[in-house]
Amino acid sequence: MAKKQIVILGGGFGGVYTARCLEKLLPPGDADISLVNRENYWVYQPMLPEVISGSIALTDVVAPIRRLCPRTNLIMREAEEIDLKNRVITVSPGFRPRQKKIPYDYLVIALGELTNFYGMPGMLENAMPFRTLADAIALRNHVIHVLEEADVEEDADLRRRLLTFVVGGGGFSGVEVTAELNDFVRAVKKNYLRLRNEQVRCVLVHSRGRILPEMADPLALFAQKILRKRGVEIILNDRLVAATSEKAILKSGLEIPSKTIISTVPATAPPILAKLDCAKDKTKLLVSTALELQGYEGQVWALGDCASIKTVSGKSVPPTAQHATREASTCAINIARAIRGGTPSGFAFEGLGTLASLGHGSAVAQIFGLKISGILAWFLWRTIYLAKIPGIKSKVRIGMDWLIHLLFPPDLAQTKVDAGSAIKKQHFEPGDIVFHQGDLGDSVYVIERGECQVLREADGATTQLATLQAGDYFGEMALLSDKSRNATIQARTALEVLLIPKADFDILRKSVPAFGEVFHSLARQRDEAGRNPSSAPD
Amino acid sequence: MAKKQIVILGGGFGGVYTARCLEKLLPPGDADISLVNRENYWVYQPMLPEVISGSIALTDVVAPIRRLCPRTNLIMREAEEIDLKNRVITVSPGFRPRQKKIPYDYLVIALGELTNFYGMPGMLENAMPFRTLADAIALRNHVIHVLEEADVEEDADLRRRLLTFVVGGGGFSGVEVTAELNDFVRAVKKNYLRLRNEQVRCVLVHSRGRILPEMADPLALFAQKILRKRGVEIILNDRLVAATSEKAILKSGLEIPSKTIISTVPATAPPILAKLDCAKDKTKLLVSTALELQGYEGQVWALGDCASIKTVSGKSVPPTAQHATREASTCAINIARAIRGGTPSGFAFEGLGTLASLGHGSAVAQIFGLKISGILAWFLWRTIYLAKIPGIKSKVRIGMDWLIHLLFPPDLAQTKVDAGSAIKKQHFEPGDIVFHQGDLGDSVYVIERGECQVLREADGATTQLATLQAGDYFGEMALLSDKSRNATIQARTALEVLLIPKADFDILRKSVPAFGEVFHSLARQRDEAGRNPSSAPD
Repeated sequence: MAKKQIVILGGGFGGVYTARCLEKLLPPGDADISLVNRENYWVYQPMLPEVISGSIALTDVVAPIRRLCPRTNLIMREAEEIDLKNRVITVSPGFRPRQKKIPYDYLVIALGELTNFYGMPGMLENAMPFRTLADAIALRNHVIHVLEEADVEEDADLRRRLLTFVVGGGGFSGVEVTAELNDFVRAVKKNYLRLRNEQVRCVLVHSRGRILPEMADPLALFAQKILRKRGVEIILNDRLVAATSEKAILKSGLEIPSKTIISTVPATAPPILAKLDCAKDKTKLLVSTALELQGYEGQVWALGDCASIKTVSGKSVPPTAQHATREASTCAINIARAIRGGTPSGFAFEGLGTLASLGHGSAVAQIFGLKISGILAWFLWRTIYLAKIPGIKSKVRIGMDWLIHLLFPPDLAQTKVDAGSAIKKQHFEPGDIVFHQGDLGDSVYVIERGECQVLREADGATTQLATLQAGDYFGEMALLSDKSRNATIQARTALEVLLIPKADFDILRKSVPAFGEVFHSLARQRDEAGRNPSSAPD
Repeated sequence: MAKKQIVILGGGFGGVYTARCLEKLLPPGDADISLVNRENYWVYQPMLPEVISGSIALTDVVAPIRRLCPRTNLIMREAEEIDLKNRVITVSPGFRPRQKKIPYDYLVIALGELTNFYGMPGMLENAMPFRTLADAIALRNHVIHVLEEADVEEDADLRRRLLTFVVGGGGFSGVEVTAELNDFVRAVKKNYLRLRNEQVRCVLVHSRGRILPEMADPLALFAQKILRKRGVEIILNDRLVAATSEKAILKSGLEIPSKTIISTVPATAPPILAKLDCAKDKTKLLVSTALELQGYEGQVWALGDCASIKTVSGKSVPPTAQHATREASTCAINIARAIRGGTPSGFAFEGLGTLASLGHGSAVAQIFGLKISGILAWFLWRTIYLAKIPGIKSKVRIGMDWLIHLLFPPDLAQTKVDAGSAIKKQHFEPGDIVFHQGDLGDSVYVIERGECQVLREADGATTQLATLQAGDYFGEMALLSDKSRNATIQARTALEVLLIPKADFDILRKSVPAFGEVFHSLARQRDEAGRNPSSAPD
C-alpha cells in the first residue's frame, strides 16, 4: 500500500486537533500529514480578548503548531486554490515568487471564518475585526495609541472621540472584548496625568433585545447588569452599518464620534471556498453527519466554522471550540477508516454548556443545565479553560500571567512595529538576478541607478533581448497580463531599483490613469518588439 | 517663582533615569517635567538579545514610562526640531496633522544613537539593525520565517541561504545577538521535520583581530572559543560593506549567501542633532563634565549615547547603561541646582566593569579587576541585571521567564502583524471634513466615488472654491510646496477616496515622472486659478 497523503487546510481548533488525532490513529508508515496555515502557531481563541489588557501576554495565548503536532508537515503559506477534481492544493509563493502545488489523497478543510464588511461603507478601513492574534495585537496597540494621543490633545472634542470605544456584536466575542477593553482603559487611565478626570465611553451595540443570544435569559440579563455597573453603555436593537475615521454610524441613524470601532460581526467563509463547486449552506460548506463534503465522500471533509454541520440527531452545530475539537476527532476517525476500511462515524456531540467572561472577577456559565454567574462562574471559566489548554508550558505561563495580573496593574507598553511603505528600494550587485523567467509577477521595477539586461531562455539557449538603464521600467508585462515572467532580469552593474508591489501598482494604475498609461504603452511596445525579436524585456 | 518647564528628549536609560531623579529632587510645585519619546515604553536594553530566543517574553523586556516616572508628562511623539535660541521643541503631529510646539526652560537631550548604513550599498534595504524592541521583534519573526521557508523549499541552494545567518560587529551587542540567535536556531531546528539533518551557519564578522574590544584578552579569547564550540563561525579583520537580498558582502570581497544579515555597527547620532548649531565631536554633542551643552550652560544638557562626555578625570565615557544612569543623576542634580542655585557637579563615575552573555549557561565578566568566565559569570550576569531592573513586576516576570526557559524548549510562534500597504482607501459621510485648512499636508487624495467641496476660510468668512468628483485629485499643492493646506475639503455626498501618503507620493513622482506631472500640472492650474479667485482647491 502506497503512503497516503493527507492535507489539512487551516490551523485553528479544527485543523490542529484533526492533525493531533491523526498522529495518534495512523502509524507514520501509513500516511504523511501536511497542514497548511498562514501562521506557524495555533491561537487559544477563547483567551484572545485577554490579550487586550495584557492579562495574558500576547505570546502565551498561542502555541507553535510544530510542537502540538510534531509529526505533521507544517506549510506556512496561504492556500490559494483547491482543485477537488485533480486533488491538488495550490499555495502562495514564499521568498521565490513561484506557487507550490500539493497533491492529496485525503483533504480536510478547516479554514474558519472571516469578518465580512460587504455593503457597510467605511467599515473595512475604519472598523477593526477581532478574530486573529494580529487583530488582538493591533487593537491593543491602537487603544494605547488613542490614550497617548488623548493625553496630549488640547481639543476637548477630539479628546472625547479618542476616549470613546465602540464594539459591534453582543455575542461571546463582543461581550468579552468589551469587558476586557473597559477594564483595561479604566485601569490604566490613572497613569495618564491629564486623563484622570476625563470620561471614558465604552459602547456595546447589539442587534437584538438582549446580549448573549446563546445563553439563558437570566444570565444574559446578569451580564448586562454587570457590564453597565462597570460603565459600559449597551445599545440594543441596533447595529453598526457604516464608519468613518471619526465616527461609528448605526442603523437607527445614531452616530457615535469615536476613533476606535471594533466589529465582531458579521462572518463569512473565506473567499477561497466561494470558488468551490459543491453543496453549500450560504457561504459554508455543507457536509454530512460524517463531515464529508457532498460528492467527495471518503475524500474530502470539512469542519469547524467554515462548515455547516448537523449532528446525527439533526441539530445544527454551533461554531465553538468545544464542538470543533470533537468534530476533529470524528474527522480523524473517518479518515483512518477511509484508509483502512470501515463505516464512517457520525458526529453526535451535543455540547457541554456555554461560558462568557465579563472581565475581572465575573462571568456567566451554563453547564449541565446549571446557571451560574459572578465570581464562581469566573473561577469555573478560568479552571475549565486552563485545563483545556494543551501542553504544560502554556498552562504554567498562563497561570503565571493570571497570578501576576491579580497582583500588579496591567501593562501599558505599546509593542507596535512600524509598518513603513510597501514601495521600497532594492540593491543588486553585478551578476545578480532580479527575477527569473517563469516566476510569478509580483511587482514592477523602476531603475534608479545602474544597468541590467533582459535575458530570454528558450530551448536551452539564452538570448539577450535588451539592456535597461536608469529611468527605465520593467516587470510590467507579467503584472498587466497576469502571467508569469517571460524573461530573466540580471544586473550588469551595481543596480538600485524601486520596487512597486502588485497591490499598490494595481490601485495606482486604476486611480491615476496617467500612471497606468506609462506601463500600458511600454507593455504594448515591448509586446510588438517581442514579436519581431530584436529587443523586448520582461 | 514661576513653575519651570523641564523637557527631556528620549526615553532610554539617560532620559528615563533623569526624569526619575528629577521627580525625587524637585517637588511638584517647582517644575513640570515632560518627556518626549516615540514609544511609551522604556527598553531594558541589555536583555534585548534574549527576545530573539523568547527566553524573555517580548513584553517583559520593556516597562511603561508612565509607571517608571509617574509625575512626568509623557508625550508619545517624535521630536522633529530643536530650537535652542527660542527654547522650543517641535514634535510630530498625531491624529490631526498639526505639529505641536513645546516651550522649555531646561532641556535634556538623551536621544541615543541610530544604526547608519551610509555608503554601504543595499544595507538599508537588506540588513537588519538591532537597537530597538521593534528591531528585536522583526528579527525574531524573520528568523522564524526563514526556518519555515527552508522547511518547505526544495532548492538546496536556496535552503542553505535561508539557513545562513550573518551578524556584523563583534562588540557586546553583536556577540550577544549571535549567541542567542545560534542557540535559538539550533534548539528549534529539531521541530522542523525536513531540517533535522540540514547544516545551520551562524557567522560573526568583526573588524579587528579579536571580538569584544572592551574586554581583556583572555576573556575575549574565551568568548571566541565558546562561540566556536557552539557552531558559530567567527571571521576576524573583515567587515560588512554591502548586501543584497541574497547575500552579505565583506570588505575582503568574500560573499556569504544569506537571507538574514544583522548589523550592530556603525552608529551615528540621530539626524535631528545634525541640524543643531553647537559644539560636536563627530556627530555627537560635545558637553562639559557637568553634561552642559557648550554655549547653553545651565539651560541644555546632553547625555547618553548621543553625547561625547569626559569624566572629571579626563577619561572618555563609554556608551553603556551603567554610565547613562549615573549621567542621569548628575544631570538631574545640575538641573535642580540651576533652578535653586548652586555650582554644577561634574561627572566622575569610572565604571564598575563589563559583562557579556554568551548564551545558555556561559558569559564573560570583568568586575572590580576580576576576570570571570563560564557559568559563574553567566550567573553573575543574570543576578546583576535582574537586580538592576526597576519595579517588582518586571523582576518577577523576567525571573519567571528565565525559569520557564530553563525547563521548556524555546517558543517558536511568529507574532508578525501584517503591514499591508500604506496606500489605502478612506470613507467619509456627507458633511465630514477630509482635512482642514492649516493642517500639515501629509497625503494626496484621489476620489473614487462621490463629491466634495473645496472651502476657503478668510477673515471669518467661508467661500466655496470648487466641487470635485470621481477621478479628481486633491491635496497635491501642500505636498508639492511643502506648506500647510490652503483650503478645507468637505464631503458633499458619501465619499470614497484613495489616500497616497507623502512618502509614497514623493518616491513615485520622482521615479515615474508621468505620475508626478499629473499632480504638478494640476497644482499649476489651481495656483493660477487661485490668483483670480473663482475656482481652486487644496
